[in-house]
Amino acid sequence: MEKMKNIQRVNLVCVGSELFFYVVNTNIHIANKILEENGFELNCNVIVPDDMGKIIDSVIFCINTGDAVIISGGLGPTFDDITRESMAKMLNKNLIFSQQAWNQIQERFKARKIDSIPEKNKRQAMVIEGAVMFPNEIGTAPGMFFEYMGKPVFLLPGPPVEFENMMRKCVIPELIRQRGSEIQNVFVRKGFGIAGEPESIVEEKTEKLRKDIEFTGGVWTILALPYLIELWLKLPVDKKNLFEEVENELRNIFQDSFLGTDGMTIPQALALLLNKRKLVCCFAESCTGGLAGHLMTEIPGISSCFNGSIVTYSNKLKKKLLKVPKTILRKYGAVSEQTAIAMAKGARKYGKADVSLAITGIAGPSGGTIEKPVGLVWMAVALTNKNVQTKKFYFSGTRSTIKTRAALAGIDLLRRVLLREKK
Amino acid sequence: MEKMKNIQRVNLVCVGSELFFYVVNTNIHIANKILEENGFELNCNVIVPDDMGKIIDSVIFCINTGDAVIISGGLGPTFDDITRESMAKMLNKNLIFSQQAWNQIQERFKARKIDSIPEKNKRQAMVIEGAVMFPNEIGTAPGMFFEYMGKPVFLLPGPPVEFENMMRKCVIPELIRQRGSEIQNVFVRKGFGIAGEPESIVEEKTEKLRKDIEFTGGVWTILALPYLIELWLKLPVDKKNLFEEVENELRNIFQDSFLGTDGMTIPQALALLLNKRKLVCCFAESCTGGLAGHLMTEIPGISSCFNGSIVTYSNKLKKKLLKVPKTILRKYGAVSEQTAIAMAKGARKYGKADVSLAITGIAGPSGGTIEKPVGLVWMAVALTNKNVQTKKFYFSGTRSTIKTRAALAGIDLLRRVLLREKK
Repeated sequence: MEKMKNIQRVNLVCVGSELFFYVVNTNIHIANKILEENGFELNCNVIVPDDMGKIIDSVIFCINTGDAVIISGGLGPTFDDITRESMAKMLNKNLIFSQQAWNQIQERFKARKIDSIPEKNKRQAMVIEGAVMFPNEIGTAPGMFFEYMGKPVFLLPGPPVEFENMMRKCVIPELIRQRGSEIQNVFVRKGFGIAGEPESIVEEKTEKLRKDIEFTGGVWTILALPYLIELWLKLPVDKKNLFEEVENELRNIFQDSFLGTDGMTIPQALALLLNKRKLVCCFAESCTGGLAGHLMTEIPGISSCFNGSIVTYSNKLKKKLLKVPKTILRKYGAVSEQTAIAMAKGARKYGKADVSLAITGIAGPSGGTIEKPVGLVWMAVALTNKNVQTKKFYFSGTRSTIKTRAALAGIDLLRRVLLREKK
Repeated sequence: MEKMKNIQRVNLVCVGSELFFYVVNTNIHIANKILEENGFELNCNVIVPDDMGKIIDSVIFCINTGDAVIISGGLGPTFDDITRESMAKMLNKNLIFSQQAWNQIQERFKARKIDSIPEKNKRQAMVIEGAVMFPNEIGTAPGMFFEYMGKPVFLLPGPPVEFENMMRKCVIPELIRQRGSEIQNVFVRKGFGIAGEPESIVEEKTEKLRKDIEFTGGVWTILALPYLIELWLKLPVDKKNLFEEVENELRNIFQDSFLGTDGMTIPQALALLLNKRKLVCCFAESCTGGLAGHLMTEIPGISSCFNGSIVTYSNKLKKKLLKVPKTILRKYGAVSEQTAIAMAKGARKYGKADVSLAITGIAGPSGGTIEKPVGLVWMAVALTNKNVQTKKFYFSGTRSTIKTRAALAGIDLLRRVLLREKK
């Protein structure tokens, strides 16, 4: 019987253009999650461009500092994909044409109803001599597995769905086989969202709770997202009953600012509340330009509680579509409490909604004055035609971050007003 | 005089939670750009969590494989920021309280009109014994510079604006000083955007051009963004006159699909065209939920050519705000050519615009049928009340990617229709 190895720290090498980070990020997330669920630890990530010398250097570093190495990316058919070649060179082995791999690639094209397979896809059927081939159930490039300096090395395709599938179906079973059946050090992770509070306040208010949980082996991460602080807690699996206690304590500390768990977004929290109360909302947006509506409609099935958003970027449209009185615009300006109120009333009425939210502000970089600086945003929430509540915000940052914060703060304001109304 | 060093390959270590990739990414982009502009090369990036052992391992790897190392992140005031401590340990040096750093931190708080400085910010005034301190002109954490194993090592704060400022003002001058005045191997990079063409087509059609340019020392990267392929070309600075030739050739190959250069976005290309023709547009959105409007309003000063977007997510609002006839909705459904046409006409009229775009489709994951599958999107562009042009699209992917592709394809369709109209 093969001697069981100590396999704990797994290193990840992401190969690809330094310009193409989306895939890299997604794969780091995926690897981290799947490894953790199975009692392994993502130790270190290296990102390298499609350069043979750098790929080899990074893989050797990762072999030296970890117990196993996963490489993602650079297995495509195009000219800049050279991970296969790099690993063959590192191993001093040849690349061999695999009829089995080629058959699978041809099947994949047939399934996509593509008759003529580009000749260059034949490169994807080249497999490192002696390596184990992993079939690709989703895309064309097969994965590979070999050992180097006594440690397992995996070559996986870059596209995240293919990467994830092969991580679960091929990499994890092989790592578990090598480690032996007993699983140690399994961790579970849970996130807790706090909306609209600054990071330093969240940290201060949770200091005692965090210290207490750390004594039991918990590890905290604070994640500052736009208008949202997430506290992520990693616990040994046998301590996972502590999550409930932590959630109760955080709800108690933060009251209405406590949003939910495990990556609950601000729009999701609003949608939950609207559906629970059987209410339909409509937005009136100016400076956010449609972003608040976009964020709501990222949620499947949102039509149950979201009618639409009337994006009146010009004053002309504020008058035409929301019936904001000309006199209000003239007297107070487009960015004012009065305009926000009129917009919210218009959105509620013409958007045929039970409740509405209006957002009007100065996203910059120009257009600010001393009295109304860039970042000033007025919001209004109309619960009825008479009950309209307003709030003024000052956001800092670029045009894009001001828009993002304003959209999320607006959605959160509607949520808070609804929560308070109930009490 | 100090002997000049060969400083070419610069490695980057990004310290921070594996959950917080936005900052990491942005900093990799910034470092890559600034280094390249100054004749250095970003060689390898390592991402490590806030863990002392891993930080030290990664920095040592980067020292061994590069000529200089830049470390970003982990200089904040909070409990999980331990980059300072890690480097002090690696160097076997102490951290010393710097009155100068503390004065700067206090000034920063004063500028933000915050009177009481949290005690924990004092941690940010701790500087490694013997290190050179870089003042932080934007945030609170100072940067540091020291040498290890004869190579320069820089500690920079994680927030991208602070990182960028210190890269330009402190890191680059020091690297140039150490390299000596003569700049070698300076590269320049230019991007060329092709809208709405599949990656494989772009690759095939540019094969000859790319090969020709590679002979002159050019390096190509293909970047597949939503509905946009970017070809990035890196050239030795003395060959930069080739960019014009490449641009002309690409314009010639791709005609209306050629979008622009250096990261020109699809909304920017439309805005350029609308402003040039002195036209104002308005959108009617259904499945994209406001995303098309959001993308347009990311552009500063867009009010010159963009009035707003009427986001009618429900049929009720399509009738109410865009006057889509009830009979059309009943006979053809919300996702149909006829509804798209009525929406575009409504957006043009009630949105008080010269031209309009309407987008209606099925973003999924549910709501699809055999006749109208998830991903089907009908678009209409109204140039006048009589001249309305339509196009049907099928997009694949998740709800979120379908929305993104639909919004960009719609904006691009309006651009193309305007271009064709002129001819």
